Amino acid sequence: MIRNRLSVIKVGGNIIDNEKQLKLFLNNFKQIDGLKILVHGGGKIATNISNSLKIKSKIIDGRRITNKSTLDIITMVYAGKINKNIVSNLQSINCNAIGLSGPDGNTIEAKKRKVKKINYGFVGDIKKINTELLILLLNNKYFPVICSLSHDKQGQILNTNADTIAASIAVGLSSKFNVALYYCFEKNGVLNSDDDEKNIIDEINPNSYYKLKSEGIINSGMIPKIDNCFDALRNGVKTVKIGSIKMIKSNINHTSIVLQND
Amino acid sequence: MIRNRLSVIKVGGNIIDNEKQLKLFLNNFKQIDGLKILVHGGGKIATNISNSLKIKSKIIDGRRITNKSTLDIITMVYAGKINKNIVSNLQSINCNAIGLSGPDGNTIEAKKRKVKKINYGFVGDIKKINTELLILLLNNKYFPVICSLSHDKQGQILNTNADTIAASIAVGLSSKFNVALYYCFEKNGVLNSDDDEKNIIDEINPNSYYKLKSEGIINSGMIPKIDNCFDALRNGVKTVKIGSIKMIKSNINHTSIVLQND
Repeated sequence: MIRNRLSVIKVGGNIIDNEKQLKLFLNNFKQIDGLKILVHGGGKIATNISNSLKIKSKIIDGRRITNKSTLDIITMVYAGKINKNIVSNLQSINCNAIGLSGPDGNTIEAKKRKVKKINYGFVGDIKKINTELLILLLNNKYFPVICSLSHDKQGQILNTNADTIAASIAVGLSSKFNVALYYCFEKNGVLNSDDDEKNIIDEINPNSYYKLKSEGIINSGMIPKIDNCFDALRNGVKTVKIGSIKMIKSNINHTSIVLQND
Repeated sequence: MIRNRLSVIKVGGNIIDNEKQLKLFLNNFKQIDGLKILVHGGGKIATNISNSLKIKSKIIDGRRITNKSTLDIITMVYAGKINKNIVSNLQSINCNAIGLSGPDGNTIEAKKRKVKKINYGFVGDIKKINTELLILLLNNKYFPVICSLSHDKQGQILNTNADTIAASIAVGLSSKFNVALYYCFEKNGVLNSDDDEKNIIDEINPNSYYKLKSEGIINSGMIPKIDNCFDALRNGVKTVKIGSIKMIKSNINHTSIVLQND
């Protein structure tokens, strides 16, 4: 059986924050052939609105704590403002998008993270993706646009990392489709040096990853992202790339994540 | 061909505003047999958040004007906070709800209302309901929960009256299903007297409607609602009732809207 190709694309917060960049991104998304799913979190919009409402974000060890008020704001911003903005923009260029969050049709079921050293608040670790719903929509030419909210199926919405959601959806659908996973952001790939935007790492495999981490070239937020990439590859996803949206159609500069050396 | 029964239910703002009332309502919604769709607007939550953000609502002739900031807030509150709260609550009681707003899969396409005497701002009059998407979801045992936002398919989200959306959806699906339309609110029906909650009008037909309006018994916000009811009946919807959610299962006190006298 020849499997249909499916592109799962995560768009980064810096693109979402910039109206012009977002429109360019969505135009490129529209042009991608075949089946596709878009996953997004929020940018700085949630923080800005929290500030206007004088809700203070608590940050421990560099991680934002999702308390009740913060969860309320991100539910409004991710599932409301950003998701509907993306969907209405895609619809205006005849790309048949449909917005989903975790509770919708039980798309993303999660478990509230247990309190250990740090209480992250209303944060969910993914238990199950409703692949049946996604397949139903894709087979009927609807392209899901999924925001980074899950739920515990007991009435509680939870905040979940968008990179992890994209990887879980890609893995979940890899038995049905030939899945390519793309992490798109404002750069052309993972940089060899923070100072040189043109110095892109072409390929990262488990050995080079270990080296790049020990040298501090890959650090902080990039580490869980690349961990997600390897997880996806080990669980059925065919290709994983990090870079700008243009890499998908034109195969220009980007970072490929691979399990084996060339 | 025997058509399946479909209940289209609009829930009022006063129920949405009251957490306990809303839970009771959703429990009753879950118990309705057969296919069902829920339509909601917002309650006072949008106004409260607007006040916190110091966004002033402009009201002309008793109608709220939807400017850019107000539209932003209602997009967050209707499609984000309220819609996802309802959907996650329904999912928690094993009712397979899926949230939709106008742009999602082009569910509700509208035209921005032309400026005549009053500029209502970003308000949309319905052009088309994507009944194919609703039928696809219903046939696959997903129950759409639709918020009162439409879009113009040119990237603009628009504010649209929830009563009118419920009627348009009911009419749109009436060639495929045996549709019953229910307007649910905190009362048991349309009242004969504002002072007596127990004095319900059992039935309203076009003749009695004319009389009730001329006597001032039916006035203000109830008039467009009942106009929607008659429109729905004239365009294929089988039954229309106004009252509490309990009228659906137990047929207790409510107001029936009918085209002919008994």
